[in-house]
Parts: sequence; C-alpha cells; structure tokens
Amino acid sequence: MNVQTQHTASAPDLGAIREAHRRIAPLIHHTQVMTCASLDQLAGARLFFKCENLQKTGSFKIRGATNAIASLTPQEARCGVVTHSSGNHAAALSLAARTRGVTAWIVMPTNAPLTKKRAVERYGGKITECEPTLPAREAAARAIIERTGSVMLHPYNDARIIAGQGTAALELLEEVPDLDFILAPVSGGGLLSGTAIAASSLRPQIRVIGCEPKNADDAFRSLASGSIQPMEHPDTIADGLRASLCPLTFDILRERVDRIALVSEDEIVEAMRLVWERMKIIIEPSSAVAAAVAFERKIPMAGKNVGVILSGGNVDLDRLPFTKLT
Amino acid sequence: MNVQTQHTASAPDLGAIREAHRRIAPLIHHTQVMTCASLDQLAGARLFFKCENLQKTGSFKIRGATNAIASLTPQEARCGVVTHSSGNHAAALSLAARTRGVTAWIVMPTNAPLTKKRAVERYGGKITECEPTLPAREAAARAIIERTGSVMLHPYNDARIIAGQGTAALELLEEVPDLDFILAPVSGGGLLSGTAIAASSLRPQIRVIGCEPKNADDAFRSLASGSIQPMEHPDTIADGLRASLCPLTFDILRERVDRIALVSEDEIVEAMRLVWERMKIIIEPSSAVAAAVAFERKIPMAGKNVGVILSGGNVDLDRLPFTKLT
Repeated sequence: MNVQTQHTASAPDLGAIREAHRRIAPLIHHTQVMTCASLDQLAGARLFFKCENLQKTGSFKIRGATNAIASLTPQEARCGVVTHSSGNHAAALSLAARTRGVTAWIVMPTNAPLTKKRAVERYGGKITECEPTLPAREAAARAIIERTGSVMLHPYNDARIIAGQGTAALELLEEVPDLDFILAPVSGGGLLSGTAIAASSLRPQIRVIGCEPKNADDAFRSLASGSIQPMEHPDTIADGLRASLCPLTFDILRERVDRIALVSEDEIVEAMRLVWERMKIIIEPSSAVAAAVAFERKIPMAGKNVGVILSGGNVDLDRLPFTKLT
Repeated sequence: MNVQTQHTASAPDLGAIREAHRRIAPLIHHTQVMTCASLDQLAGARLFFKCENLQKTGSFKIRGATNAIASLTPQEARCGVVTHSSGNHAAALSLAARTRGVTAWIVMPTNAPLTKKRAVERYGGKITECEPTLPAREAAARAIIERTGSVMLHPYNDARIIAGQGTAALELLEEVPDLDFILAPVSGGGLLSGTAIAASSLRPQIRVIGCEPKNADDAFRSLASGSIQPMEHPDTIADGLRASLCPLTFDILRERVDRIALVSEDEIVEAMRLVWERMKIIIEPSSAVAAAVAFERKIPMAGKNVGVILSGGNVDLDRLPFTKLT
C-alpha cells in the first residue's frame, strides 16, 4: 500500500480533527467569529461568521496543508511536496511547507492570474509553468516527482487535508456550541467534509448545509443522483468552487450533509457586497456563496443560530464585480 | 455655565476614559487587535492594529457618541441631539441615540454621498437637508435646536466625546501593554487627543504619533507654529481628515503628542491597498494614513512594538482608488 492510497482510503473522524488541531494550532491564526446585527436582520437568524478570510494566506486551506505537511516522514520532508492546484491551496501549501523547511513545487498554468503567482512566490513556493490544460499540469507534476522524489498533496482527496479543514468548524463550535445550522461552500468537498464530520460529531442535531453556485452545481447533482457527476463548464464568479467531488468526499457528504443549497451569480455578488459593506471584511466570491444562502433565506432557519464559514478573502482588487447602486 | 461650555472646558483624564469605557462597553464591539507577518516585515517593526473599522457603524466614532449620549440628563434625552457633521460621527450619533431611545437630528448638505445618507437612515437618524455651505448647515442646526430644544453634540470639541474616543487606545494597551509607539490619524483631534491621554497615562514612555495627509497638514502646522492654523482647501482622499483642531484638542496634542507625521496621497492609497490585500479587512483612506506612516517608515521605530489605530472602514465600493498593478 503506497502513501497516497493510505491517506485517501478512509474518512477522518473527530479524533483525527482534534489531533490535527493540536498539531496546527501554534502555526495558524485562531480566527475570529464575527456577528453583525444588520445582517442578522436580513437573514432573520443569528449568524456567526467564522472568518477564515482572515486566516494566514487568506483562506482555510492553510489548515489542511499544515496538517499534511506535519505528517510527512523526515524522508518525505527532505524530498518536498508538489501540487498542480493553482489557487488558495497552492499558496497555503507554499507557506506550510516553508514553515517546516520543506520545498513546495507548484505547477501553474501560464495563464494563471498574476495575483496568484505573486502569493505563491511570497510564501516561498517554487513555480513551474506549464500549458493551461489538465494533462499538461499532471505531466509537469509527474516530471517533478520523478526528478525530486517529492510527494503529491491533493487539495482534498486526502484524509489529512480533510481533518485539517475540519478544525475551522471545531473552533467555531467550541466558541458557539448551540448552533442549529452550519453553512460551508462546496467545491471538491474538502472543507465541507471536514466541517460535516466535526459538526455532526460534536452536535448530532446540527444540520449541515453545503452551499454551491447554481452555475457549478455538480455536488448538488451528485448527491441527488447518488453518483459523482462531473462539472463540464462551470461558469461562476466563485473561482474557488469549480472542482468536482472525489470518491472520498462524496461518501462523507452523502453520509453527513443534509442538503446542498444553490445560489445565483447575482446573489453571490450581492452577498459579497453586503459583507464588505456591513462587516468591513474582504471575502472572495466562494465565501459569499455561503453568506448568500443565509441572506436569501434559501433554507428555513428563522430565529435559529447559524454558523457560516467564510472560507477565504483572496480577490483581485483590480477586478471587483460590484455594480453601481442606484 | 451652560452645558456646552462645561463639556468643552477641560480635557478628560484617564479616570474619565476608564469611566467612559465602563459605560459604553456593553453597547459597542470590543474590536480585535490584528497582526500581519508580511506587513511587520514591510514596516521593520511589530505592528498591532486596533481594528475600529470593524466597530459598530464602521468607525471609532460610536465610542464618543455613545459616551456623550449616556451622559445626557433625562430632560436632554427627551429633547434629542443634533449635529451637522455628515460623516462617521453622524452615523455613530444616530445609532448611539437610537440605542437610548433618543432622537438624533442630522443636518446633511444636499450633495452628501448617497452611502452616507443611507448609513444615517439605517441607524435611525432624522436627516434635514440644507445647502452645502457651513453657514447653511449651522443655520439648519440652530433652527432644529430652537424648534426641539435638542442638544448640539460636536464631533470633537467635547470632553465626553474625547473620553469615549480614548477607550480604543485603552483597550489596545490593556491587550498589548508594551507598546513603544502608538499611531492615530488626526483631523479635528478627538481620536488623537483621547489616544494620547490614555496611552501617555498608562505608559509614560510611549511615543504618540499623529498621522496626517500632506495635503491637509493643518495639525502639523499648528503644532509647529504654536497656534491653531486653518486648513483652507484640503485636497486629500482621506475624507475623514479635513477638519481642523479646536482649542481643546490643540492644547491636549501640544502637551501629549510627540510628533505629527505626514504622508502623500500615493502613500495613503498604497497603504490602503496593502491592508486590504494582506489583512483582508476594509479600511477607509483616513485609517490608511496611520498605516502608511508605519509602512513607509516615516518614524524611526525599527524593531519596536507599534500600535496602529485603524479608525474606520466606511468607503464607497463604487469609487475605489486602486490603480492597476503592473
């Protein structure tokens, strides 16, 4: 059994999430839980926002990456890690690796946004450019692995990553134990899986809601149909939510998630603007997907206590989607 | 002696700031102190950001307004309060008044930005429009006072307001006692006065730095010349820093502020962008003035512990000043 198989074989449990938390807590921010009276009024519920946008590297991804890096053997650590995910996972993996003195090889397509390249560079990742196709990215990663002996760290198909991502919900429920609902965005399902395991273990009566753009509704269709559905051409501003489930996350979501709620592109932009304006914090569109489910009352939760995981805050300030208020 | 004279006669002391804090603490947010490794590196110092941008109404102004409202006699409270300051003070006064069931009359010029009017309305202030000149604003306020018997609450020429504003520095120094410097923006001087009284009383060796745009440098010129200098045509993006000192704040600053540091418009915009990008929080240009003093190393404070008061986060998202990164 090779290392990759071992880490993708089975879901982590609450114990694994607690262990991940002990391991990563000294290396990450314990992010604030914010509240906002005017947004409570809008949602008709009491909202508790877990601010992973204020996390190191600007997203929750540092939690899983730090946990995975901590679990490398000394031999693996010497050879380094590699990923061909170019978004928040790449930046997080770069910083988590640097913190342990491990080399992170990041395969990025030539057309990746400059802001993402700069973030990876700032955190010390070594960028290899390739053509912007999945085969080219996989080939570039394989070439690095063959040359360096480095370990591939998948952004969500990995129990160590999922356990790390679950620590955000663990912290939220330790601070606000009486949540009735917990909302998290879903893409590949790493964050939602970790959230669902932590929340449903700590509080069995909680309802776990995955939040997804209508225009990238593969998780919704997958859970409805009972088999993983691909997302051919996701056309959403929520650039962090374009991946599809893997067997590991699909099984976890099937077991522990109550429902996937869908929101439109307009609802995402409006929710993003509301959080910026009322809470004075910067969230990326993927986070706004979860906020929009609350603001638009997509789920009946009047008067309830609702946790909302704001997953990240990495946006390109030169390309903001806000339209003029009239 | 009338009420107005009484409240502007002398500076509050640390005791008054502590008392203000006891009074307002249940009604405001205890804002977070944030740190950011990459901005520390830029500044060459350890920065502790007191996030008043995350405060209720989006600025520190709710502190002074709440303290002043709490000190009204029942008779005064029945008649209401009035102001013709149209910015953050107006929004803060509206909410502070509503919280005590007091009417807040807000005189605003017809050309005030829509976002500011909406904020005042959201917090329950009663807007009276007038021509956009100071005489028209004063006349409108006088007319309201004559009609209603309401009390004028000046945004900074008032010891109760100054004591309230000083509670932000009080909280910051209680959380981070070993600050070597504390930086706050200066306009009319209410925030800087309260900050200076709290900080220099709690920690006599601290150096208090006022931060001001070069293009609105009246506090700098006033302290340099020894008399209050007017600011004829402030031309700065920092729209919260266009007022001038009053005798009360001038005397406090002369006694307790070490230096006024000046920053250019480009430095303000760059600092604002850096805080948005790296810390994922929204600050307004006035706050960026204090951050810019740190980032641009305007004061020799290498390796020191530096408190930075981020005064507010109210911006018009349709009119952001960022230029393209190349």
